[in-house]
Amino acid sequence: MRKKIALDMDEVVADVMPKFLDAYEIEFGKRLLREDYWGKKVYDIPGADHIRNVLHNKGFFRDLPVMANSQEVVGELNEKYDIFFTTSAMEFRNSLEDKYDWLLDHFPFISWKKFVFCGDKSILRADYMIDDHPRNLKKFVGKGLLYTASHNTQETAYTRVNNWLEIREFFAAETP
Amino acid sequence: MRKKIALDMDEVVADVMPKFLDAYEIEFGKRLLREDYWGKKVYDIPGADHIRNVLHNKGFFRDLPVMANSQEVVGELNEKYDIFFTTSAMEFRNSLEDKYDWLLDHFPFISWKKFVFCGDKSILRADYMIDDHPRNLKKFVGKGLLYTASHNTQETAYTRVNNWLEIREFFAAETP
Repeated sequence: MRKKIALDMDEVVADVMPKFLDAYEIEFGKRLLREDYWGKKVYDIPGADHIRNVLHNKGFFRDLPVMANSQEVVGELNEKYDIFFTTSAMEFRNSLEDKYDWLLDHFPFISWKKFVFCGDKSILRADYMIDDHPRNLKKFVGKGLLYTASHNTQETAYTRVNNWLEIREFFAAETP
Repeated sequence: MRKKIALDMDEVVADVMPKFLDAYEIEFGKRLLREDYWGKKVYDIPGADHIRNVLHNKGFFRDLPVMANSQEVVGELNEKYDIFFTTSAMEFRNSLEDKYDWLLDHFPFISWKKFVFCGDKSILRADYMIDDHPRNLKKFVGKGLLYTASHNTQETAYTRVNNWLEIREFFAAETP
């Protein structure tokens, strides 16, 4: 039986940051620089907490940029592992169809059978989990990889991967 | 830590049969009787295979009747277990919002954090699974309960439950 990889979407294969920066700029008239938000979430900047509401907008998740090298590396891993896209979509009803369509567009070689839209990820059983949220890795029974995002830079409890080339490198050293 | 129950939707808490019978009647001008479909699926009746396509219709899953006693018993089990609704929604893009809204309507005491829309249920980790499909129970690592449906009447490999009162009875004898 092939080993399973539970792969998060937002901030792992889908880049939400540009649209958050857009939302902030529309509201406050300023394009944030990396040093403005690195180490936290954009909506943790004082006065910007309501920016998070854009996540509820129909269409928000439909046109997110794909993370560099993710399609290529997921394609390679798909040869040896069962890849499941496991995303905490359920807080955002309007994201469901958008995320579905986005996955079909950008990862057409992964079947809809491997899409998982959930809330609490403690329900997942896999061998690996790649996620930007330490809270998801904490409850996970397999090997967790923390994908670097602005909000998790201080976390030291998990194996960190900074980009998809590092994920390729990590799995090159694993036994499928 | 509370034990988890992975609870299927269609033919377990949501009754799809009346709308299949409607679809058959509209097409063939005949209301099927229980003996016409018991032991198989409605769309396994010769000539009726295309009836399954109604599952793709927007709205199909939105107004399904709730299985008798399921709200009450899920409410009771929710006191002692973590209940996750785990449904193979992903084949049907148009079912996603419908199933979401249906759950909020009929099981408002279960958080969206406990909704799981997936395809291949082998990704799930729970202590119990209640499902009408033997293929889902087969890959499950916990205790599987087969909820009786017309298409599974010949299956003998799993503990069978015929209705929600039997589910209540089963869990009354378990240690939460």
